[in-house]
Amino acid sequence: MQIGIIGGTGPEGRGVAARLGAAGVHTLLGSRDLDRAREAASALAQGSAVEPATNETVIDRCDVILLTVPFASTAAILETYGTRFRGGTLLVDVTVPMTFEQGRPTFQEVPDGSAAEFIRARLPAAVRVAATLKTIPASVLVRTETPLDCDEFVCGDSPDATAAAVEMLRLIPGIRPIEAGGLEAARALERMTVLAVGINKRYRVRTARFRVVGV
Amino acid sequence: MQIGIIGGTGPEGRGVAARLGAAGVHTLLGSRDLDRAREAASALAQGSAVEPATNETVIDRCDVILLTVPFASTAAILETYGTRFRGGTLLVDVTVPMTFEQGRPTFQEVPDGSAAEFIRARLPAAVRVAATLKTIPASVLVRTETPLDCDEFVCGDSPDATAAAVEMLRLIPGIRPIEAGGLEAARALERMTVLAVGINKRYRVRTARFRVVGV
Repeated sequence: MQIGIIGGTGPEGRGVAARLGAAGVHTLLGSRDLDRAREAASALAQGSAVEPATNETVIDRCDVILLTVPFASTAAILETYGTRFRGGTLLVDVTVPMTFEQGRPTFQEVPDGSAAEFIRARLPAAVRVAATLKTIPASVLVRTETPLDCDEFVCGDSPDATAAAVEMLRLIPGIRPIEAGGLEAARALERMTVLAVGINKRYRVRTARFRVVGV
Repeated sequence: MQIGIIGGTGPEGRGVAARLGAAGVHTLLGSRDLDRAREAASALAQGSAVEPATNETVIDRCDVILLTVPFASTAAILETYGTRFRGGTLLVDVTVPMTFEQGRPTFQEVPDGSAAEFIRARLPAAVRVAATLKTIPASVLVRTETPLDCDEFVCGDSPDATAAAVEMLRLIPGIRPIEAGGLEAARALERMTVLAVGINKRYRVRTARFRVVGV
């Protein structure tokens, strides 16, 4: 499968690209602006595994596409590119609807319940949607010398979509995929990210992430 | 501090009582029916640390009161006993609004956002409210020979309420308390319980609970 990232120049996109690149997985790092994609890819210094691209190229060439833009940008992205996605493509939503209220990280209520469901509702039915990599901080992902040593939850709009996202996740060393069920599980996962950001602030770290004990 | 449990004869109440009793913490196990409280307390076989009581006695004698009834019973409980709680009492909400839809564990939307906030809104202001022990399965709590070996999140309606709940939690060996912020954090924590129940079903275990890595 060819993996690509829309919004690859942001912190989360660079983090995911860094981990995939370090594992030797050929990954297209997409941006609206090819020059910015080139800068981000070369800053990662993962050899030739991470290839800069436009978002359009990512959509046209990739089977698995991670969406790592800020949640506020998803509506515009889906409006611009929604119909361009080929049927069977797996879109992996990595966004989290979070705001800061008086400095406090806050889950931003989404009419559809979660970002993942918001995105599902705005893509053609033939595009499969899964959600994962929501709870691991970008700052941990990008430091590839730090073992991840954690679990990451995966949910999807079908068992097939979840399985494909699990397969993608297994390419990154140090993450154990945990299947979390249907896409509505993202309501928990996205709030867990907000929880982790709050824990980071409270405990003065930037590394909080999750493990499931007893599984 | 004197600790007591309202709804102590249910699975979660017996689990919490078992752990506190095993740690030698004198705990009142409350029930509407004193005979049922006696049965539950003697079944735990934690010596004299767990004392059977009526819910009324728990409310009148305890400084820290864990509410472990099914969420569907909380409205009636609060209506019956709400004004009986003394000012300064810490009510620790352990309830989770969960239903099963076609066998699938589902978070039951609560108008106030979470069970903890629902309870806060229905108690006198002088009663302090915290929420914790939501994510550890009752079946793990009750088997006191199993090391808990996990984290548990604590949130409260004031830093003081959170701190008091953390102090209570520290009495139980094997749990690391993680401060999760204000009571609205229960929206994440209660959904994490639903997530854990789903993971239990999916992975055919009854032991899923959480640890925060990187803190």
